[in-house]
Amino acid sequence: MPPAPFSRQLRIRFSHSDPAGIVYYPNYFDMFNGLVEDWFSDDLGIDYAKQILVNRLGLPTVHAACDFFIPSRMGDSLTMTLLLRDVGRSSLKLAIHGHVGREERLRADLVIVLISLDSNKSTPIPETLRRRFVDYKAAHAGWTVESATA
Amino acid sequence: MPPAPFSRQLRIRFSHSDPAGIVYYPNYFDMFNGLVEDWFSDDLGIDYAKQILVNRLGLPTVHAACDFFIPSRMGDSLTMTLLLRDVGRSSLKLAIHGHVGREERLRADLVIVLISLDSNKSTPIPETLRRRFVDYKAAHAGWTVESATA
Amino acid sequence: MPPAPFSRQLRIRFSHSDPAGIVYYPNYFDMFNGLVEDWFSDDLGIDYAKQILVNRLGLPTVHAACDFFIPSRMGDSLTMTLLLRDVGRSSLKLAIHGHVGREERLRADLVIVLISLDSNKSTPIPETLRRRFVDYKAAHAGWTVESATA
Amino acid sequence: MPPAPFSRQLRIRFSHSDPAGIVYYPNYFDMFNGLVEDWFSDDLGIDYAKQILVNRLGLPTVHAACDFFIPSRMGDSLTMTLLLRDVGRSSLKLAIHGHVGREERLRADLVIVLISLDSNKSTPIPETLRRRFVDYKAAHAGWTVESATA
Repeated sequence: MPPAPFSRQLRIRFSHSDPAGIVYYPNYFDMFNGLVEDWFSDDLGIDYAKQILVNRLGLPTVHAACDFFIPSRMGDSLTMTLLLRDVGRSSLKLAIHGHVGREERLRADLVIVLISLDSNKSTPIPETLRRRFVDYKAAHAGWTVESATA
Repeated sequence: MPPAPFSRQLRIRFSHSDPAGIVYYPNYFDMFNGLVEDWFSDDLGIDYAKQILVNRLGLPTVHAACDFFIPSRMGDSLTMTLLLRDVGRSSLKLAIHGHVGREERLRADLVIVLISLDSNKSTPIPETLRRRFVDYKAAHAGWTVESATA
Repeated sequence: MPPAPFSRQLRIRFSHSDPAGIVYYPNYFDMFNGLVEDWFSDDLGIDYAKQILVNRLGLPTVHAACDFFIPSRMGDSLTMTLLLRDVGRSSLKLAIHGHVGREERLRADLVIVLISLDSNKSTPIPETLRRRFVDYKAAHAGWTVESATA
Repeated sequence: MPPAPFSRQLRIRFSHSDPAGIVYYPNYFDMFNGLVEDWFSDDLGIDYAKQILVNRLGLPTVHAACDFFIPSRMGDSLTMTLLLRDVGRSSLKLAIHGHVGREERLRADLVIVLISLDSNKSTPIPETLRRRFVDYKAAHAGWTVESATA
Protein backbone atom coordinates (compact mmCIF):
# COMPACT_ATOMS: atom_id res chain seq x y z
CA MET A 1 0.00 0.00 0.00
CA PRO A 2 1.37 3.48 -0.81
CA PRO A 3 2.31 5.76 2.10
CA ALA A 4 -0.59 7.58 3.70
CA PRO A 5 -1.12 11.17 2.52
CA PHE A 6 -1.14 14.17 4.83
CA SER A 7 -3.96 14.11 7.32
CA ARG A 8 -5.02 15.86 10.49
CA GLN A 9 -7.50 15.12 13.21
CA LEU A 10 -9.75 17.95 14.26
CA ARG A 11 -12.05 18.09 17.25
CA ILE A 12 -15.53 19.21 16.29
CA ARG A 13 -16.31 22.03 18.66
CA PHE A 14 -19.27 23.84 20.13
CA SER A 15 -18.32 26.81 17.96
CA HIS A 16 -18.54 24.74 14.76
CA SER A 17 -22.09 23.69 15.50
CA ASP A 18 -25.45 25.15 14.63
CA PRO A 19 -28.81 25.18 16.46
CA ALA A 20 -29.53 21.74 14.97
CA GLY A 21 -26.42 20.45 16.78
CA ILE A 22 -24.43 19.69 13.63
CA VAL A 23 -21.50 21.47 11.99
CA TYR A 24 -22.55 24.66 10.18
CA TYR A 25 -21.24 23.74 6.74
CA PRO A 26 -19.29 26.94 5.91
CA ASN A 27 -17.06 25.99 8.85
CA TYR A 28 -15.90 22.91 6.93
CA PHE A 29 -14.39 25.14 4.24
CA ASP A 30 -12.54 27.00 6.98
CA MET A 31 -11.24 23.64 8.24
CA PHE A 32 -10.09 22.77 4.70
CA ASN A 33 -8.16 26.01 4.48
CA GLY A 34 -6.44 25.22 7.76
CA LEU A 35 -5.59 21.74 6.45
CA VAL A 36 -3.98 23.18 3.31
CA GLU A 37 -2.04 25.66 5.47
CA ASP A 38 -0.76 22.85 7.71
CA TRP A 39 0.10 20.71 4.69
CA PHE A 40 2.27 23.51 3.34
CA SER A 41 3.97 24.27 6.65
CA ASP A 42 4.26 20.87 8.28
CA ASP A 43 4.50 18.42 5.40
CA LEU A 44 5.93 20.25 2.37
CA GLY A 45 8.12 22.59 4.39
CA ILE A 46 6.73 25.71 2.71
CA ASP A 47 6.29 28.71 5.00
CA TYR A 48 2.70 29.72 4.19
CA ALA A 49 2.85 33.02 6.07
CA LYS A 50 6.14 33.97 4.39
CA GLN A 51 4.76 33.22 0.92
CA ILE A 52 1.98 35.71 1.48
CA LEU A 53 3.58 38.36 3.66
CA VAL A 54 7.14 38.35 2.25
CA ASN A 55 7.04 36.83 -1.23
CA ARG A 56 3.71 38.57 -2.00
CA LEU A 57 2.21 35.38 -3.39
CA GLY A 58 -1.43 34.60 -2.76
CA LEU A 59 -3.29 31.32 -2.98
CA PRO A 60 -6.93 32.14 -3.64
CA THR A 61 -9.40 29.30 -4.02
CA VAL A 62 -11.14 29.56 -7.40
CA HIS A 63 -13.30 26.47 -7.04
CA ALA A 64 -14.61 24.73 -3.96
CA ALA A 65 -17.09 21.87 -3.87
CA CYS A 66 -18.09 19.46 -1.15
CA ASP A 67 -20.51 16.59 -0.67
CA PHE A 68 -21.62 16.21 2.91
CA PHE A 69 -22.63 12.57 3.37
CA ILE A 70 -23.18 12.45 7.11
CA PRO A 71 -23.31 15.38 9.54
CA SER A 72 -20.70 15.72 12.28
CA ARG A 73 -21.37 16.77 15.83
CA MET A 74 -19.63 18.38 18.77
CA GLY A 75 -17.19 15.89 20.27
CA ASP A 76 -16.54 14.02 17.00
CA SER A 77 -12.94 13.68 15.92
CA LEU A 78 -12.83 14.39 12.19
CA THR A 79 -9.83 13.08 10.24
CA MET A 80 -9.19 15.10 7.10
CA THR A 81 -6.90 13.65 4.43
CA LEU A 82 -5.42 15.69 1.60
CA LEU A 83 -4.82 14.30 -1.90
CA LEU A 84 -3.21 16.23 -4.71
CA ARG A 85 -5.03 15.42 -7.94
CA ASP A 86 -3.27 17.69 -10.40
CA VAL A 87 -0.42 20.19 -10.59
CA GLY A 88 -1.04 22.82 -13.27
CA ARG A 89 1.11 25.69 -14.47
CA SER A 90 -0.12 27.93 -11.66
CA SER A 91 -2.85 25.88 -10.00
CA LEU A 92 -3.34 22.88 -7.73
CA LYS A 93 -6.32 20.57 -7.76
CA LEU A 94 -6.89 19.02 -4.33
CA ALA A 95 -9.26 16.48 -2.89
CA ILE A 96 -10.07 16.26 0.81
CA HIS A 97 -11.70 13.30 2.52
CA GLY A 98 -13.25 13.61 5.94
CA HIS A 99 -13.76 10.58 8.20
CA VAL A 100 -14.89 9.87 11.70
CA GLY A 101 -13.51 6.45 12.43
CA ARG A 102 -14.13 4.39 9.29
CA GLU A 103 -17.18 6.37 8.29
CA GLU A 104 -16.72 8.81 5.43
CA ARG A 105 -18.42 12.06 6.33
CA LEU A 106 -17.53 14.34 3.42
CA ARG A 107 -15.54 14.65 0.23
CA ALA A 108 -14.30 17.95 -1.20
CA ASP A 109 -12.60 19.26 -4.32
CA LEU A 110 -10.64 22.49 -4.29
CA VAL A 111 -8.75 24.38 -6.96
CA ILE A 112 -6.27 26.95 -5.71
CA VAL A 113 -4.26 29.29 -7.91
CA LEU A 114 -0.95 30.96 -7.25
CA ILE A 115 -1.16 34.70 -7.88
CA SER A 116 1.12 37.66 -7.49
CA LEU A 117 -0.36 39.99 -4.87
CA ASP A 118 1.22 42.90 -6.72
CA SER A 119 -0.26 42.24 -10.15
CA ASN A 120 -3.28 40.19 -8.97
CA LYS A 121 -2.54 37.85 -11.87
CA SER A 122 -1.80 34.15 -11.79
CA THR A 123 1.89 33.33 -11.79
CA PRO A 124 3.69 30.06 -12.58
CA ILE A 125 4.44 27.85 -9.58
CA PRO A 126 8.18 28.30 -8.86
CA GLU A 127 10.23 25.23 -9.77
CA THR A 128 11.33 24.48 -6.17
CA LEU A 129 7.72 24.39 -5.03
CA ARG A 130 6.55 22.51 -8.12
CA ARG A 131 8.93 19.64 -7.42
CA ARG A 132 7.49 19.18 -3.93
CA PHE A 133 3.96 19.16 -5.26
CA VAL A 134 4.81 16.66 -8.03
CA ASP A 135 6.60 14.41 -5.53
CA TYR A 136 3.65 14.54 -3.14
CA LYS A 137 1.23 13.65 -5.91
CA ALA A 138 3.39 10.73 -7.08
CA ALA A 139 3.89 9.37 -3.56
CA HIS A 140 0.18 9.08 -2.88
CA ALA A 141 -1.13 8.38 -6.37
CA GLY A 142 -2.29 4.87 -5.55
CA TRP A 143 -3.83 5.74 -2.21
CA THR A 144 -7.58 5.51 -1.94
CA VAL A 145 -9.98 6.08 0.87
CA GLU A 146 -11.36 2.63 0.23
CA SER A 147 -8.03 0.86 0.68
CA ALA A 148 -7.22 2.97 3.73
CA THR A 149 -10.42 2.16 5.55
CA ALA A 150 -10.78 -1.43 4.36
CA MET B 1 -38.46 39.34 -19.59
CA PRO B 2 -39.56 37.21 -16.62
CA PRO B 3 -39.73 38.85 -13.16
CA ALA B 4 -36.37 39.12 -11.37
CA PRO B 5 -35.71 36.40 -8.81
CA PHE B 6 -34.93 37.09 -5.16
CA SER B 7 -31.72 39.01 -4.64
CA ARG B 8 -29.92 40.91 -1.91
CA GLN B 9 -27.08 43.38 -1.86
CA LEU B 10 -24.40 42.78 0.70
CA ARG B 11 -21.61 45.11 1.68
CA ILE B 12 -18.25 43.36 1.65
CA ARG B 13 -16.74 44.11 5.03
CA PHE B 14 -13.39 44.26 6.72
CA SER B 15 -14.37 41.11 8.59
CA HIS B 16 -14.96 39.19 5.34
CA SER B 17 -11.47 39.92 4.10
CA ASP B 18 -8.19 38.10 4.42
CA PRO B 19 -4.58 39.34 4.63
CA ALA B 20 -4.51 39.49 0.81
CA GLY B 21 -7.37 42.03 1.01
CA ILE B 22 -9.98 39.81 -0.66
CA VAL B 23 -12.93 37.89 0.74
CA TYR B 24 -11.88 34.73 2.59
CA TYR B 25 -13.87 32.23 0.54
CA PRO B 26 -15.57 30.28 3.36
CA ASN B 27 -17.34 33.55 4.18
CA TYR B 28 -19.15 33.37 0.84
CA PHE B 29 -20.86 30.16 1.94
CA ASP B 30 -21.97 31.94 5.09
CA MET B 31 -23.40 34.72 2.89
CA PHE B 32 -25.24 32.10 0.80
CA ASN B 33 -26.80 30.66 3.94
CA GLY B 34 -27.99 34.11 4.93
CA LEU B 35 -29.44 34.63 1.47
CA VAL B 36 -31.40 31.38 1.67
CA GLU B 37 -32.64 32.38 5.14
CA ASP B 38 -33.81 35.77 3.84
CA TRP B 39 -35.42 34.17 0.81
CA PHE B 40 -37.48 31.95 3.10
CA SER B 41 -38.46 34.73 5.49
CA ASP B 42 -38.82 37.74 3.24
CA ASP B 43 -39.86 36.31 -0.12
CA LEU B 44 -41.58 32.97 0.46
CA GLY B 45 -43.09 33.94 3.79
CA ILE B 46 -41.69 30.89 5.57
CA ASP B 47 -40.51 31.52 9.13
CA TYR B 48 -37.05 29.95 9.03
CA ALA B 49 -36.51 30.16 12.78
CA LYS B 50 -39.90 28.60 13.51
CA GLN B 51 -39.28 25.72 11.10
CA ILE B 52 -36.18 24.79 13.06
CA LEU B 53 -37.07 25.68 16.63
CA VAL B 54 -40.79 24.85 16.64
CA ASN B 55 -41.48 22.44 13.78
CA ARG B 56 -38.18 20.61 14.40
CA LEU B 57 -37.33 20.64 10.72
CA GLY B 58 -33.73 21.13 9.65
CA LEU B 59 -32.32 22.21 6.30
CA PRO B 60 -28.79 20.84 6.11
CA THR B 61 -26.76 21.52 2.98
CA VAL B 62 -25.64 18.22 1.46
CA HIS B 63 -23.80 19.66 -1.51
CA ALA B 64 -22.16 23.05 -1.97
CA ALA B 65 -20.02 24.15 -4.90
CA CYS B 66 -18.84 27.53 -6.06
CA ASP B 67 -16.71 28.97 -8.82
CA PHE B 68 -15.04 32.20 -7.83
CA PHE B 69 -14.37 34.12 -11.05
CA ILE B 70 -13.16 37.44 -9.65
CA PRO B 71 -12.29 38.26 -6.04
CA SER B 72 -14.30 40.82 -4.10
CA ARG B 73 -12.89 43.42 -1.75
CA MET B 74 -13.87 45.48 1.24
CA GLY B 75 -16.26 48.20 0.12
CA ASP B 76 -17.69 46.23 -2.82
CA SER B 77 -21.45 45.82 -2.94
CA LEU B 78 -22.15 42.21 -3.89
CA THR B 79 -25.56 41.41 -5.35
CA MET B 80 -26.54 37.79 -4.80
CA THR B 81 -29.43 36.33 -6.81
CA LEU B 82 -31.14 33.07 -5.96
CA LEU B 83 -32.52 30.66 -8.57
CA LEU B 84 -34.38 27.48 -7.79
CA ARG B 85 -33.28 24.77 -10.21
CA ASP B 86 -35.18 21.79 -8.93
CA VAL B 87 -37.72 20.81 -6.29
CA GLY B 88 -37.31 17.20 -5.22
CA ARG B 89 -39.30 15.08 -2.82
CA SER B 90 -37.35 16.41 0.15
CA SER B 91 -34.61 18.48 -1.43
CA LEU B 92 -34.06 21.79 -3.21
CA LYS B 93 -31.41 22.48 -5.80
CA LEU B 94 -30.41 26.15 -5.81
CA ALA B 95 -28.11 28.32 -7.87
CA ILE B 96 -26.68 31.60 -6.62
CA HIS B 97 -25.12 34.25 -8.80
CA GLY B 98 -22.94 36.97 -7.35
CA HIS B 99 -22.38 40.28 -9.15
CA VAL B 100 -20.72 43.58 -8.49
CA GLY B 101 -22.31 45.93 -10.96
CA ARG B 102 -22.50 44.00 -14.23
CA GLU B 103 -19.48 41.88 -13.46
CA GLU B 104 -20.19 38.31 -12.44
CA ARG B 105 -18.00 37.45 -9.48
CA LEU B 106 -19.13 33.95 -8.52
CA ARG B 107 -21.64 31.21 -9.27
CA ALA B 108 -22.71 28.58 -6.74
CA ASP B 109 -24.80 25.42 -6.61
CA LEU B 110 -26.35 24.21 -3.39
CA VAL B 111 -28.47 21.21 -2.52
CA ILE B 112 -30.38 21.42 0.74
CA VAL B 113 -32.47 18.66 2.23
CA LEU B 114 -35.41 18.86 4.58
CA ILE B 115 -34.92 16.59 7.58
CA SER B 116 -36.74 15.85 10.77
CA LEU B 117 -34.57 16.94 13.70
CA ASP B 118 -36.14 14.17 15.76
CA SER B 119 -35.36 11.27 13.45
CA ASN B 120 -32.42 12.89 11.60
CA LYS B 121 -33.94 11.47 8.40
CA SER B 122 -35.04 13.30 5.31
CA THR B 123 -38.73 14.09 5.25
CA PRO B 124 -41.02 15.08 2.35
CA ILE B 125 -41.46 18.80 1.80
CA PRO B 126 -44.93 19.66 3.18
CA GLU B 127 -47.43 20.46 0.43
CA THR B 128 -47.93 24.09 1.50
CA LEU B 129 -44.22 24.75 1.25
CA ARG B 130 -43.84 22.73 -1.94
CA ARG B 131 -46.33 24.91 -3.75
CA ARG B 132 -44.37 28.05 -2.92
CA PHE B 133 -41.17 26.49 -4.16
CA VAL B 134 -42.77 25.25 -7.39
CA ASP B 135 -44.31 28.68 -7.99
CA TYR B 136 -40.99 30.40 -7.39
CA LYS B 137 -39.22 28.07 -9.80
CA ALA B 138 -41.85 28.60 -12.48
CA ALA B 139 -41.87 32.38 -12.09
CA HIS B 140 -38.15 32.70 -12.74
CA ALA B 141 -37.58 29.77 -15.08
CA GLY B 142 -36.69 31.95 -18.05
CA TRP B 143 -34.48 34.35 -16.13
CA THR B 144 -30.79 34.26 -16.90
CA VAL B 145 -27.86 36.23 -15.62
CA GLU B 146 -27.02 37.06 -19.19
CA SER B 147 -30.39 38.62 -19.98
CA ALA B 148 -30.41 40.48 -16.68
CA THR B 149 -27.03 42.11 -17.17
CA ALA B 150 -27.25 42.60 -20.94
CA MET C 1 -34.32 64.99 23.96
CA PRO C 2 -31.03 65.01 22.06
CA PRO C 3 -30.99 63.45 18.57
CA ALA C 4 -30.68 59.67 18.53
CA PRO C 5 -27.17 58.35 17.96
CA PHE C 6 -26.25 56.01 15.12
CA SER C 7 -27.98 52.65 15.31
CA ARG C 8 -28.62 49.64 13.13
CA GLN C 9 -31.01 46.75 13.30
CA LEU C 10 -29.56 43.34 12.71
CA ARG C 11 -31.42 40.11 12.16
CA ILE C 12 -30.14 37.35 14.41
CA ARG C 13 -29.43 34.46 12.08
CA PHE C 14 -29.09 30.73 12.14
CA SER C 15 -25.37 31.23 11.58
CA HIS C 16 -25.03 33.39 14.71
CA SER C 17 -26.49 30.70 16.90
CA ASP C 18 -24.97 27.86 18.87
CA PRO C 19 -26.26 24.39 19.77
CA ALA C 20 -28.07 25.92 22.74
CA GLY C 21 -30.05 28.06 20.26
CA ILE C 22 -28.60 31.40 21.38
CA VAL C 23 -26.03 33.70 19.79
CA TYR C 24 -22.48 32.39 20.13
CA TYR C 25 -21.00 35.38 21.95
CA PRO C 26 -17.87 35.97 19.79
CA ASN C 27 -20.30 36.76 16.97
CA TYR C 28 -21.48 39.83 18.89
CA PHE C 29 -18.01 41.32 18.64
CA ASP C 30 -18.13 40.73 14.90
CA MET C 31 -21.46 42.58 14.83
CA PHE C 32 -19.90 45.47 16.78
CA ASN C 33 -17.12 45.71 14.23
CA GLY C 34 -19.68 45.89 11.45
CA LEU C 35 -21.55 48.60 13.34
CA VAL C 36 -18.41 50.71 13.69
CA GLU C 37 -17.70 50.20 9.98
CA ASP C 38 -21.21 51.35 9.06
CA TRP C 39 -20.97 54.31 11.43
CA PHE C 40 -17.83 55.45 9.66
CA SER C 41 -19.20 54.93 6.15
CA ASP C 42 -22.85 55.84 6.50
CA ASP C 43 -22.96 58.39 9.30
CA LEU C 44 -19.57 60.12 9.49
CA GLY C 45 -18.89 59.92 5.77
CA ILE C 46 -15.48 58.30 6.29
CA ASP C 47 -14.58 55.65 3.72
CA TYR C 48 -13.47 52.80 5.99
CA ALA C 49 -12.05 50.68 3.16
CA LYS C 50 -10.10 53.62 1.76
CA GLN C 51 -8.60 54.48 5.15
CA ILE C 52 -7.14 51.00 5.37
CA LEU C 53 -6.31 50.15 1.77
CA VAL C 54 -5.28 53.58 0.46
CA ASN C 55 -4.32 55.74 3.45
CA ARG C 56 -2.67 52.77 5.20
CA LEU C 57 -4.38 53.55 8.48
CA GLY C 58 -5.56 50.73 10.70
CA LEU C 59 -8.10 50.75 13.52
CA PRO C 60 -7.23 47.87 15.81
CA THR C 61 -9.35 47.30 18.89
CA VAL C 62 -7.15 47.38 22.00
CA HIS C 63 -9.91 46.81 24.53
CA ALA C 64 -13.25 45.09 24.19
CA ALA C 65 -15.68 44.29 26.97
CA CYS C 66 -19.28 43.26 26.97
CA ASP C 67 -21.96 42.34 29.49
CA PHE C 68 -24.54 39.98 28.07
CA PHE C 69 -27.72 40.50 30.09
CA ILE C 70 -30.16 38.39 28.10
CA PRO C 71 -29.38 35.95 25.28
CA SER C 72 -30.68 36.59 21.77
CA ARG C 73 -32.09 33.98 19.44
CA MET C 74 -32.54 33.32 15.75
CA GLY C 75 -35.29 35.59 14.44
CA ASP C 76 -34.71 38.37 16.97
CA SER C 77 -34.12 41.85 15.58
CA LEU C 78 -31.24 43.34 17.56
CA THR C 79 -30.91 47.13 17.56
CA MET C 80 -27.34 48.26 18.23
CA THR C 81 -26.71 51.88 19.18
CA LEU C 82 -23.28 53.49 19.14
CA LEU C 83 -22.18 56.14 21.61
CA LEU C 84 -18.83 57.91 21.53
CA ARG C 85 -17.56 58.33 25.07
CA ASP C 86 -14.18 59.87 24.48
CA VAL C 87 -11.95 61.16 21.68
CA GLY C 88 -8.27 60.82 22.54
CA ARG C 89 -5.16 61.85 20.64
CA SER C 90 -5.22 58.65 18.60
CA SER C 91 -7.99 56.60 20.19
CA LEU C 92 -11.76 56.42 20.45
CA LYS C 93 -13.72 55.08 23.37
CA LEU C 94 -17.08 53.69 22.27
CA ALA C 95 -20.10 52.22 23.99
CA ILE C 96 -22.59 49.98 22.24
CA HIS C 97 -26.05 49.15 23.53
CA GLY C 98 -28.00 46.24 22.17
CA HIS C 99 -31.79 46.05 22.44
CA VAL C 100 -34.58 43.85 21.25
CA GLY C 101 -37.66 46.03 21.51
CA ARG C 102 -37.33 47.84 24.83
CA GLU C 103 -35.33 45.09 26.45
CA GLU C 104 -31.63 45.75 26.86
CA ARG C 105 -29.74 42.64 25.84
CA LEU C 106 -26.10 43.72 26.06
CA ARG C 107 -23.79 46.65 26.73
CA ALA C 108 -20.26 46.89 25.36
CA ASP C 109 -17.21 49.11 25.69
CA LEU C 110 -14.59 49.29 22.96
CA VAL C 111 -11.36 51.22 22.61
CA ILE C 112 -9.98 51.50 19.10
CA VAL C 113 -6.69 53.11 18.17
CA LEU C 114 -5.61 54.69 14.93
CA ILE C 115 -2.31 53.26 13.75
CA SER C 116 -0.12 53.65 10.72
CA LEU C 117 0.01 50.31 8.90
CA ASP C 118 3.52 51.18 7.74
CA SER C 119 5.05 51.88 11.16
CA ASN C 120 2.58 49.82 13.22
CA LYS C 121 2.56 52.71 15.68
CA SER C 122 -0.36 54.79 16.87
CA THR C 123 -0.81 58.02 14.96
CA PRO C 124 -2.80 61.17 15.84
CA ILE C 125 -6.32 61.30 14.49
CA PRO C 126 -6.23 63.70 11.50
CA GLU C 127 -7.94 67.00 12.23
CA THR C 128 -10.70 66.51 9.61
CA LEU C 129 -11.67 63.20 11.17
CA ARG C 130 -11.29 64.49 14.73
CA ARG C 131 -13.83 67.21 14.13
CA ARG C 132 -16.44 64.70 13.01
CA PHE C 133 -15.83 62.56 16.08
CA VAL C 134 -16.01 65.52 18.45
CA ASP C 135 -19.23 66.71 16.79
CA TYR C 136 -20.76 63.26 17.05
CA LYS C 137 -19.87 63.02 20.73
CA ALA C 138 -21.32 66.46 21.46
CA ALA C 139 -24.53 65.81 19.54
CA HIS C 140 -25.39 62.69 21.55
CA ALA C 141 -23.84 63.56 24.91
CA GLY C 142 -27.16 63.74 26.70
CA TRP C 143 -28.63 60.64 25.14
CA THR C 144 -29.19 57.66 27.40
CA VAL C 145 -30.59 54.24 26.85
CA GLU C 146 -32.96 54.89 29.70
CA SER C 147 -34.46 58.03 28.15
CA ALA C 148 -34.70 56.37 24.75
CA THR C 149 -36.59 53.33 25.99
CA ALA C 150 -38.64 55.10 28.65
CA MET D 1 6.60 27.47 42.12
CA PRO D 2 3.02 26.15 41.90
CA PRO D 3 2.19 23.75 39.03
CA ALA D 4 1.47 25.46 35.72
CA PRO D 5 -2.22 25.95 34.92
CA PHE D 6 -3.90 24.58 31.81
CA SER D 7 -2.53 26.05 28.61
CA ARG D 8 -2.65 25.41 24.88
CA GLN D 9 -0.58 26.58 21.97
CA LEU D 10 -2.50 27.76 18.96
CA ARG D 11 -1.12 28.52 15.52
CA ILE D 12 -2.29 31.90 14.27
CA ARG D 13 -3.72 31.22 10.85
CA PHE D 14 -4.46 32.99 7.63
CA SER D 15 -8.14 32.68 8.50
CA HIS D 16 -7.68 34.51 11.82
CA SER D 17 -6.16 37.52 10.11
CA ASP D 18 -7.58 40.70 8.71
CA PRO D 19 -6.56 42.92 5.78
CA ALA D 20 -4.07 44.66 8.10
CA GLY D 21 -2.37 41.26 8.58
CA ILE D 22 -3.22 40.93 12.27
CA VAL D 23 -5.75 38.78 14.09
CA TYR D 24 -9.31 40.06 13.71
CA TYR D 25 -10.10 40.49 17.40
CA PRO D 26 -13.47 38.66 17.57
CA ASN D 27 -11.51 35.54 16.63
CA TYR D 28 -9.67 35.73 19.96
CA PHE D 29 -12.96 35.22 21.79
CA ASP D 30 -13.57 32.16 19.65
CA MET D 31 -10.12 30.89 20.67
CA PHE D 32 -10.98 31.50 24.33
CA ASN D 33 -14.12 29.43 23.97
CA GLY D 34 -12.09 26.59 22.47
CA LEU D 35 -9.62 26.85 25.34
CA VAL D 36 -12.40 26.55 27.92
CA GLU D 37 -13.82 23.58 26.02
CA ASP D 38 -10.41 21.84 26.00
CA TRP D 39 -9.89 22.65 29.67
CA PHE D 40 -13.16 20.91 30.51
CA SER D 41 -12.51 17.88 28.31
CA ASP D 42 -8.76 17.38 28.60
CA ASP D 43 -7.87 18.71 32.03
CA LEU D 44 -10.95 18.48 34.25
CA GLY D 45 -12.32 15.35 32.61
CA ILE D 46 -15.74 16.90 32.02
CA ASP D 47 -17.38 15.93 28.74
CA TYR D 48 -18.37 19.34 27.39
CA ALA D 49 -20.50 17.95 24.55
CA LYS D 50 -22.34 15.60 26.89
CA GLN D 51 -23.09 18.40 29.39
CA ILE D 52 -24.87 20.31 26.66
CA LEU D 53 -26.41 17.59 24.53
CA VAL D 54 -27.26 15.00 27.19
CA ASN D 55 -27.43 16.78 30.55
CA ARG D 56 -29.07 19.85 28.96
CA LEU D 57 -26.72 22.22 30.75
CA GLY D 58 -25.49 25.32 28.98
CA LEU D 59 -22.52 27.53 29.74
CA PRO D 60 -23.27 30.96 28.32
CA THR D 61 -20.70 33.71 28.75
CA VAL D 62 -22.29 36.67 30.54
CA HIS D 63 -19.21 38.87 30.63
CA ALA D 64 -16.19 38.96 28.36
CA ALA D 65 -13.41 41.53 28.39
CA CYS D 66 -9.99 41.59 26.85
CA ASP D 67 -7.03 43.93 26.63
CA PHE D 68 -5.02 43.44 23.47
CA PHE D 69 -1.49 44.66 24.21
CA ILE D 70 0.32 43.57 21.05
CA PRO D 71 -1.24 42.24 17.82
CA SER D 72 -0.53 38.70 16.67
CA ARG D 73 0.14 37.65 13.10
CA MET D 74 -0.16 34.64 10.85
CA GLY D 75 2.56 32.15 11.79
CA ASP D 76 2.74 33.20 15.46
CA SER D 77 2.30 30.48 18.04
CA LEU D 78 0.02 31.88 20.74
CA THR D 79 0.11 30.21 24.16
CA MET D 80 -3.12 30.69 26.07
CA THR D 81 -3.18 29.97 29.80
CA LEU D 82 -6.35 29.58 31.83
CA LEU D 83 -6.70 30.72 35.45
CA LEU D 84 -9.78 30.21 37.57
CA ARG D 85 -10.35 33.32 39.69
CA ASP D 86 -13.57 32.46 41.41
CA VAL D 87 -16.11 29.67 41.75
CA GLY D 88 -19.58 31.00 42.49
CA ARG D 89 -22.85 29.20 43.15
CA SER D 90 -23.53 28.82 39.44
CA SER D 91 -20.76 30.83 37.80
CA LEU D 92 -17.05 30.72 37.07
CA LYS D 93 -14.75 33.71 36.77
CA LEU D 94 -11.83 32.96 34.46
CA ALA D 95 -8.75 34.83 33.35
CA ILE D 96 -6.86 34.00 30.17
CA HIS D 97 -3.35 35.13 29.36
CA GLY D 98 -2.00 35.02 25.83
CA HIS D 99 1.74 34.92 25.12
CA VAL D 100 4.00 34.54 22.15
CA GLY D 101 7.28 33.44 23.64
CA ARG D 102 7.79 35.61 26.72
CA GLU D 103 5.80 38.50 25.33
CA GLU D 104 2.33 38.98 26.77
CA ARG D 105 -0.05 39.69 23.92
CA LEU D 106 -3.43 39.82 25.64
CA ARG D 107 -5.26 39.34 28.92
CA ALA D 108 -8.93 38.42 29.18
CA ASP D 109 -11.61 38.04 31.84
CA LEU D 110 -14.63 35.84 31.31
CA VAL D 111 -17.64 35.02 33.44
CA ILE D 112 -19.59 31.94 32.46
CA VAL D 113 -22.79 30.75 34.07
CA LEU D 114 -24.23 27.29 34.29
CA ILE D 115 -27.83 27.24 33.12
CA SER D 116 -30.47 24.63 32.55
CA LEU D 117 -31.32 24.53 28.85
CA ASP D 118 -34.84 23.49 29.78
CA SER D 119 -35.65 26.39 32.11
CA ASN D 120 -33.09 28.88 30.72
CA LYS D 121 -32.32 29.74 34.33
CA SER D 122 -29.02 29.54 36.16
CA THR D 123 -28.55 26.35 38.13
CA PRO D 124 -26.11 25.50 40.93
CA ILE D 125 -22.88 23.85 39.83
CA PRO D 126 -23.24 20.14 40.72
CA GLU D 127 -21.05 19.10 43.65
CA THR D 128 -18.89 16.71 41.59
CA LEU D 129 -18.03 19.46 39.15
CA ARG D 130 -17.62 22.08 41.86
CA ARG D 131 -14.93 20.03 43.56
CA ARG D 132 -12.88 19.89 40.38
CA PHE D 133 -13.17 23.64 39.91
CA VAL D 134 -12.22 24.37 43.52
CA ASP D 135 -9.25 22.02 43.28
CA TYR D 136 -8.09 23.64 40.05
CA LYS D 137 -8.33 27.11 41.57
CA ALA D 138 -6.40 26.05 44.67
CA ALA D 139 -3.68 24.28 42.69
CA HIS D 140 -2.83 27.36 40.65
CA ALA D 141 -3.65 30.11 43.14
CA GLY D 142 -0.05 31.26 43.45
CA TRP D 143 0.76 31.13 39.77
CA THR D 144 1.37 34.39 38.01
CA VAL D 145 2.27 35.27 34.47
CA GLU D 146 5.18 37.23 35.84
CA SER D 147 6.70 34.30 37.71
CA ALA D 148 6.12 31.99 34.75
CA THR D 149 7.87 34.25 32.24
CA ALA D 150 10.57 35.58 34.57
